[in-house]
Amino acid sequence: MPGIDFELDKLHEECGVFGIYSHKDDVALNTYWGLYALQHRGQESTGIVTTDGSNMQVKKGMGLVADVYKDGVGDLTGHIAIGHVRYSTTGSSMAYNTQPLRVYFDGGNLALSHNGNLTNAAELRSRLTRDGVVFQTTVDTEVVLSLIARSRKEKVEDRVAEAVNEIKGAFAILIMTDHKLIAVRDPYGFRPLCLGKLDGGWVVASESCAFDLVGAEFIRDVKPGEMLVFEDDYAEPKSMMWSKEMPSKCAHCIFEYVYFARTDSVIDKQCVYQARINMGRELAKETKEIHPDIVISVPDSGTAAAVGYSLESGVPFMEGLTKNRYVGRTFIQPTQKQRLNAVRLKLNPVKSVVAGKSVVMVDDSIVRGTTSGKIVKLLKDAGAKEVHVCISSPPVTDPCYYGIDTSVRKELIASTHTEDEICQYIGADSLHYISLEGLKRSLSSMDPEGMCYACFNAGYPDNAEETIRQGSKYIFENK
Amino acid sequence: MPGIDFELDKLHEECGVFGIYSHKDDVALNTYWGLYALQHRGQESTGIVTTDGSNMQVKKGMGLVADVYKDGVGDLTGHIAIGHVRYSTTGSSMAYNTQPLRVYFDGGNLALSHNGNLTNAAELRSRLTRDGVVFQTTVDTEVVLSLIARSRKEKVEDRVAEAVNEIKGAFAILIMTDHKLIAVRDPYGFRPLCLGKLDGGWVVASESCAFDLVGAEFIRDVKPGEMLVFEDDYAEPKSMMWSKEMPSKCAHCIFEYVYFARTDSVIDKQCVYQARINMGRELAKETKEIHPDIVISVPDSGTAAAVGYSLESGVPFMEGLTKNRYVGRTFIQPTQKQRLNAVRLKLNPVKSVVAGKSVVMVDDSIVRGTTSGKIVKLLKDAGAKEVHVCISSPPVTDPCYYGIDTSVRKELIASTHTEDEICQYIGADSLHYISLEGLKRSLSSMDPEGMCYACFNAGYPDNAEETIRQGSKYIFENK
Amino acid sequence: MPGIDFELDKLHEECGVFGIYSHKDDVALNTYWGLYALQHRGQESTGIVTTDGSNMQVKKGMGLVADVYKDGVGDLTGHIAIGHVRYSTTGSSMAYNTQPLRVYFDGGNLALSHNGNLTNAAELRSRLTRDGVVFQTTVDTEVVLSLIARSRKEKVEDRVAEAVNEIKGAFAILIMTDHKLIAVRDPYGFRPLCLGKLDGGWVVASESCAFDLVGAEFIRDVKPGEMLVFEDDYAEPKSMMWSKEMPSKCAHCIFEYVYFARTDSVIDKQCVYQARINMGRELAKETKEIHPDIVISVPDSGTAAAVGYSLESGVPFMEGLTKNRYVGRTFIQPTQKQRLNAVRLKLNPVKSVVAGKSVVMVDDSIVRGTTSGKIVKLLKDAGAKEVHVCISSPPVTDPCYYGIDTSVRKELIASTHTEDEICQYIGADSLHYISLEGLKRSLSSMDPEGMCYACFNAGYPDNAEETIRQGSKYIFENK
Amino acid sequence: MPGIDFELDKLHEECGVFGIYSHKDDVALNTYWGLYALQHRGQESTGIVTTDGSNMQVKKGMGLVADVYKDGVGDLTGHIAIGHVRYSTTGSSMAYNTQPLRVYFDGGNLALSHNGNLTNAAELRSRLTRDGVVFQTTVDTEVVLSLIARSRKEKVEDRVAEAVNEIKGAFAILIMTDHKLIAVRDPYGFRPLCLGKLDGGWVVASESCAFDLVGAEFIRDVKPGEMLVFEDDYAEPKSMMWSKEMPSKCAHCIFEYVYFARTDSVIDKQCVYQARINMGRELAKETKEIHPDIVISVPDSGTAAAVGYSLESGVPFMEGLTKNRYVGRTFIQPTQKQRLNAVRLKLNPVKSVVAGKSVVMVDDSIVRGTTSGKIVKLLKDAGAKEVHVCISSPPVTDPCYYGIDTSVRKELIASTHTEDEICQYIGADSLHYISLEGLKRSLSSMDPEGMCYACFNAGYPDNAEETIRQGSKYIFENK
Repeated sequence: MPGIDFELDKLHEECGVFGIYSHKDDVALNTYWGLYALQHRGQESTGIVTTDGSNMQVKKGMGLVADVYKDGVGDLTGHIAIGHVRYSTTGSSMAYNTQPLRVYFDGGNLALSHNGNLTNAAELRSRLTRDGVVFQTTVDTEVVLSLIARSRKEKVEDRVAEAVNEIKGAFAILIMTDHKLIAVRDPYGFRPLCLGKLDGGWVVASESCAFDLVGAEFIRDVKPGEMLVFEDDYAEPKSMMWSKEMPSKCAHCIFEYVYFARTDSVIDKQCVYQARINMGRELAKETKEIHPDIVISVPDSGTAAAVGYSLESGVPFMEGLTKNRYVGRTFIQPTQKQRLNAVRLKLNPVKSVVAGKSVVMVDDSIVRGTTSGKIVKLLKDAGAKEVHVCISSPPVTDPCYYGIDTSVRKELIASTHTEDEICQYIGADSLHYISLEGLKRSLSSMDPEGMCYACFNAGYPDNAEETIRQGSKYIFENK
Repeated sequence: MPGIDFELDKLHEECGVFGIYSHKDDVALNTYWGLYALQHRGQESTGIVTTDGSNMQVKKGMGLVADVYKDGVGDLTGHIAIGHVRYSTTGSSMAYNTQPLRVYFDGGNLALSHNGNLTNAAELRSRLTRDGVVFQTTVDTEVVLSLIARSRKEKVEDRVAEAVNEIKGAFAILIMTDHKLIAVRDPYGFRPLCLGKLDGGWVVASESCAFDLVGAEFIRDVKPGEMLVFEDDYAEPKSMMWSKEMPSKCAHCIFEYVYFARTDSVIDKQCVYQARINMGRELAKETKEIHPDIVISVPDSGTAAAVGYSLESGVPFMEGLTKNRYVGRTFIQPTQKQRLNAVRLKLNPVKSVVAGKSVVMVDDSIVRGTTSGKIVKLLKDAGAKEVHVCISSPPVTDPCYYGIDTSVRKELIASTHTEDEICQYIGADSLHYISLEGLKRSLSSMDPEGMCYACFNAGYPDNAEETIRQGSKYIFENK
Repeated sequence: MPGIDFELDKLHEECGVFGIYSHKDDVALNTYWGLYALQHRGQESTGIVTTDGSNMQVKKGMGLVADVYKDGVGDLTGHIAIGHVRYSTTGSSMAYNTQPLRVYFDGGNLALSHNGNLTNAAELRSRLTRDGVVFQTTVDTEVVLSLIARSRKEKVEDRVAEAVNEIKGAFAILIMTDHKLIAVRDPYGFRPLCLGKLDGGWVVASESCAFDLVGAEFIRDVKPGEMLVFEDDYAEPKSMMWSKEMPSKCAHCIFEYVYFARTDSVIDKQCVYQARINMGRELAKETKEIHPDIVISVPDSGTAAAVGYSLESGVPFMEGLTKNRYVGRTFIQPTQKQRLNAVRLKLNPVKSVVAGKSVVMVDDSIVRGTTSGKIVKLLKDAGAKEVHVCISSPPVTDPCYYGIDTSVRKELIASTHTEDEICQYIGADSLHYISLEGLKRSLSSMDPEGMCYACFNAGYPDNAEETIRQGSKYIFENK
Repeated sequence: MPGIDFELDKLHEECGVFGIYSHKDDVALNTYWGLYALQHRGQESTGIVTTDGSNMQVKKGMGLVADVYKDGVGDLTGHIAIGHVRYSTTGSSMAYNTQPLRVYFDGGNLALSHNGNLTNAAELRSRLTRDGVVFQTTVDTEVVLSLIARSRKEKVEDRVAEAVNEIKGAFAILIMTDHKLIAVRDPYGFRPLCLGKLDGGWVVASESCAFDLVGAEFIRDVKPGEMLVFEDDYAEPKSMMWSKEMPSKCAHCIFEYVYFARTDSVIDKQCVYQARINMGRELAKETKEIHPDIVISVPDSGTAAAVGYSLESGVPFMEGLTKNRYVGRTFIQPTQKQRLNAVRLKLNPVKSVVAGKSVVMVDDSIVRGTTSGKIVKLLKDAGAKEVHVCISSPPVTDPCYYGIDTSVRKELIASTHTEDEICQYIGADSLHYISLEGLKRSLSSMDPEGMCYACFNAGYPDNAEETIRQGSKYIFENK
């Protein structure tokens, strides 16, 4: 049954990863909980692999964590586990792309979870296939497995180090053999990865919110360019800086703070919720010329910034849009003759709140612009006198090559339209994007210069666009 | 797979109903949308029945609207439809209780959807079975069908009037024959029911939010003791006051405003969101002795009152608890050896918001008290200096006989414990229930004396407790 | 996905029933097994109801026994159970027609399974609805429930007796209250029903093959017009002849022996397999003018008669058609451009057996004639020199009103075509139906005059055609 | 739900393959039909891969053909397709082993279906992993993909030839690139593979019965050691004898004729049904000392030989055992307290046929002996005076390394017991295995010396046992 995808007009993170090493805990159950807490990072598919030291058990499926493992994870035994959640694209035929990937190599069993995107994957695939390597998926991650398998180093961590020195782009990778758990983060630190401690074991996860759920203590972020090797329940994981070339500064993804990460996570020392409150405050400072009656949010992602706006400006925050909490991803397609504002399935204005009011509506970003326009119309139809749209990120003008699905550049409304045009397109009385400077000021606990803002200004820190262009001549997979 | 039910510690509405009469619109699709908007009133099961004037088509199932009709409703044709959503109890064997009920009688096809609870159902069942009537379900609603069928009046609306004059309790009922749609509301107006207009047709629904989604214009509430008969796409439905005895005043359910209804609905002229904002304001006025740093809510049901509290008190509102938006109803049961605060699957504190702060936490109600205690503990563990719990309803001490699942009285913590004891039980620094007077003041647009507050003070407007006691001797169904 | 229904060209039994009374055995599990053995009598849906003396548990579903109860029947507890399998019509919307039916009446719980067809159901429904009775299904069986409930006799067996004296047609009915199991057979004995004994309990079933599986000892057939009441694990069930009017002779369905029943069953003292062997012998005697090289069957239903033909004639029996044992009920529809003889999905000729041979092909019956023609073509294409079709039943010319789905008369090829025309239509070299006399001679252990042959000669023993015609004016249900 | 597996006591073929090259036909639909006809060769899982010249589409799943493709194959487009059915082992976790395998290599897309078993797979895997190759499955077939990918020949057929020259054992393999379909058979011809012609295209299949269904003309068997390359709808496929070493004689699997193949197939010029009839005749000749009243079969696999026995001996063939046609693969486990002869779920004796008779019961083979004993008991309990068991294969004493699942030698009853002991174990009055000479005489149209009888006499034509022993030291996969 074809349906309406409500999430089309958002940027999408591609993945979340979770790993655990513990002889004391139920590693599969903890991974299940960890993935549950990371579900917002990917809803298409999920997988868990465990090892008991000689065999690996795999459970994977399309769908949410609560559905894929609804019959439990009791059959996944062992003392190490890695898991993965993947962003929801269309097409169930992609089931074979579900991670973690798991293979047999000359060191026994090998499993891998990857969050991010490799910019030289096409080139590497091409080189490897010329050497007689076969690939079973279209995920760039699969090259890493072959690179590890082909390394002639003795210890698996050295093989991994050799492998990841060949790949470019964004990656937070968890690797598992029958005896070790290994965590690797790229030298720029594009994607988050952090380390936690259990009573008798260790966990790694994309976000710290996963630690809260499994009862682990947050220890620290994995450093850009660092590898951690877990071999013992109690001893500190072995740390090595594996990268032959380290960039002069980091390039943490700014959109983790704008939209992707959960508000209760702390990533690279910055509390996500605090950053969003600050973005709202900055927006308020930048829009003093508006004198609204109330500030509302597009729930739920715009709420923190709306609250920040209210705190800064003194304009009352109210819930002007009710969200239907039971909306699934799809919905029966309206027939031709039936009129329906599809956004209304998810959001409905509270007339008594907005009628006759001048409203500031805060949202995190505008991608295609289709949804924003529909929401503005809902508010106007409900009697809002004025609707001023405030966006807590600058205009998204350029594609991301580091693990965010920005589709092609031409689908980004801000890459082809001015702010005035967009304002007119969405029917708002005014439209205000936060300035890049304002956004930087929102980061209270981290260096704003160690971030990646490429989706706003094409400033790809590792020259990714050129790498991608070279690789495109090798692409031979399913289009 | 047994699991954790996160909703156990809430009161539950038993149903929502939706009906449509239109030759111009796709009645099944509109009913689908209407039920979608009413999903918060019941998540156990749902059904739609349509008629094309000679045949009725039925689709029913256990689960959410989005799941039960995932293959579409294209096979449900006709010009009249009624639908139902039902609250989620445990036990799939109850599938035969799913509404709408549909039977054949001497007038042809007959279908019925009911929101509410009949207090003399057991007595009526007993009387009818002694006359040779058989029943196929355990829902009290089924007696209404037999009462209609046994009426010797000629016109179906007169048969319905005769039937509903025999029943007692709370009811908003939709009845459909092959030619007419009939809506009936009990004389006290316990449960909501309202009337809307399409371009070429009519709709009735439990809440006005359903009208917004299908593009209908809200006309008015169905009056307590009123029956509406729809026979024409354009002509006004025929109205009759059917009840032989009308009470001196109404008894609208106060909990619709406290918790059940969607914030964007307007019920019996009162905007739900506005009432909740007011409850928060009243709470603030009643707790001036607290001097908190911030006010937070238990999302999502406590948020409106928390915002009201903030507006009144000037204390900043912030989101101190992050809600996992992907939590399903159940979850793999933790094994014995794994420790897990189950509430954390759904809610996680934002440490940077609450740490070191004196916090007011606003929630709508306390039923058993188990969840509240767990949330207070989460906040304390996250570093909250003080946690003051403010509840936007008075203590729930007495069972409801009008369609809310309050279980037995002894499970209601407030029926056996003082406020101080409850405060101690949940580990809060202080606990404040809104006063009944404060609650009444929150109703800005309706007469606070025309409400039912029986769950707070056992003041059953129709002497229901006595009726129930008499009926209990007739109960012979599955326990 | 629409598909090919391979069974369209067969007559269909409408049901099989099974009941058990035992405190020693697992009644649900035994009913499951019993229904498993009776699966050939109906594949559309199945249900089991058990009682523990105060509550009834129900499990029903569309599909085969192995599928509907695939999660077990452990939740169905008690000491009495009845079950049902129903013939597969198209249309899942008929789920509410699945038996056993179960209701509450003034005697407590009441459940009922019916095999057969009532000829005066429409008239009874009409009369009852005029008295204010409502019906929830379109199965004729439902009137029996109301008749029992409306009886003013005291004991349930007397109420049942009063009820069944009002119904006409074919019926083998099992009725269960919380304390008793009751079995009733119509006065003509149209449909089979037999009694078996467990170590500490009793069973009743449509066919004796169900007893073999549950380890019960066959005792005897339930007599036409008899009622058995089971109230004790050890004491003989109470027997009463309930019918006020007994016909002068029985009218057992001949098609049970021709096609419906399993070959290992013994019904009304006649072994089914023996009867089929005899039919083949009679066919051989009646077709001495053919001098075939081999005799083959249309598997599996024609095999017994083919073996009988071989035994009588001395012509070697061989399997000239291979049956695909994995054929489901449906199959992807061939697209327009693809040519496919759909029968080949199920049957394929063995070329080496039939090539160059004169073949006698034995089948049990010809209904529409479409399949027979396709099989003859397969054999000719495989090189058969001659194909002589021998049918072990006379031409089916008239509809059955006693529980067999013969559709309407005009779809029966023999009602509108001569044997010569049919022979030509199916492309056979000759076509031979067994004579009615030959068929009668095949019954070695029962009185051939105590049978119903109405589908061959319109000799309805109870004047059913007239009853049906009168009732048709009352029909108001879904068409 | 754990259940009873009725097939445990049978040998199992591991696979069936089907391939098609045609621009005129719907290749996916024809492959679907082909697999339908080959379903008896494997019921665990199935897959189809098609190519349209640049992209490959894959559909795979656990279960029967009718279930896995129940939503159709319309999304599988192109002009070449290969398909696979796989034998049913337990364990859904083996889903990743489902064939066809499909990978990307430097020649583009590559897909492969394999029927058979490689005896040097472990050694090859070991060698390849030492070279840095990773494997994703535990099927031996996967090594073939890497061998093809690593070949440095230019044309894909030459790469395939190089690859298959490295593998040992039994194989009928279909390989598909985006432009070619390639069929390869091992030099001994262990497993069957044949060639058919469509109006505008070509098909290859494990058995000729698949051609009948898709309307293809049987052309010839693929020769042992031959490779066919299909590149054109009309031109003959290019044939090459690829094997560097050809054995002096073939070693076709005798069990295809005894049990595996469908009776309507002709394999390597021998009609399967004719061979089975002959086996029955030989059995009759070898057991002239028995003077039974009737001969019966264990349906369905023993029926052809039983008919042959009857033809030779003149003893009447009758169906002494009724088979439940609705038995699924599993069944609810009987509880401890319930007694049940599980075989009875599938087979029930026809008392009137066997009671008081001396019976010859013909079956194809005895593997563990558990089922045979239960059937003999059923017959005795039904009153059979004597039961003489005649088996149309010699005692199975040795494991098969060529694609039949014989489990380990110690589970084969005949490897550890004499015929007398087995006779006693199964409770028969006498037990007669066909002699090897008799079995050879049954092959009317092929050279009996060109067969593999290793499961009866350990005469492995290619010294497989030694190869396996050497490889076992390399085995590192999941146990």
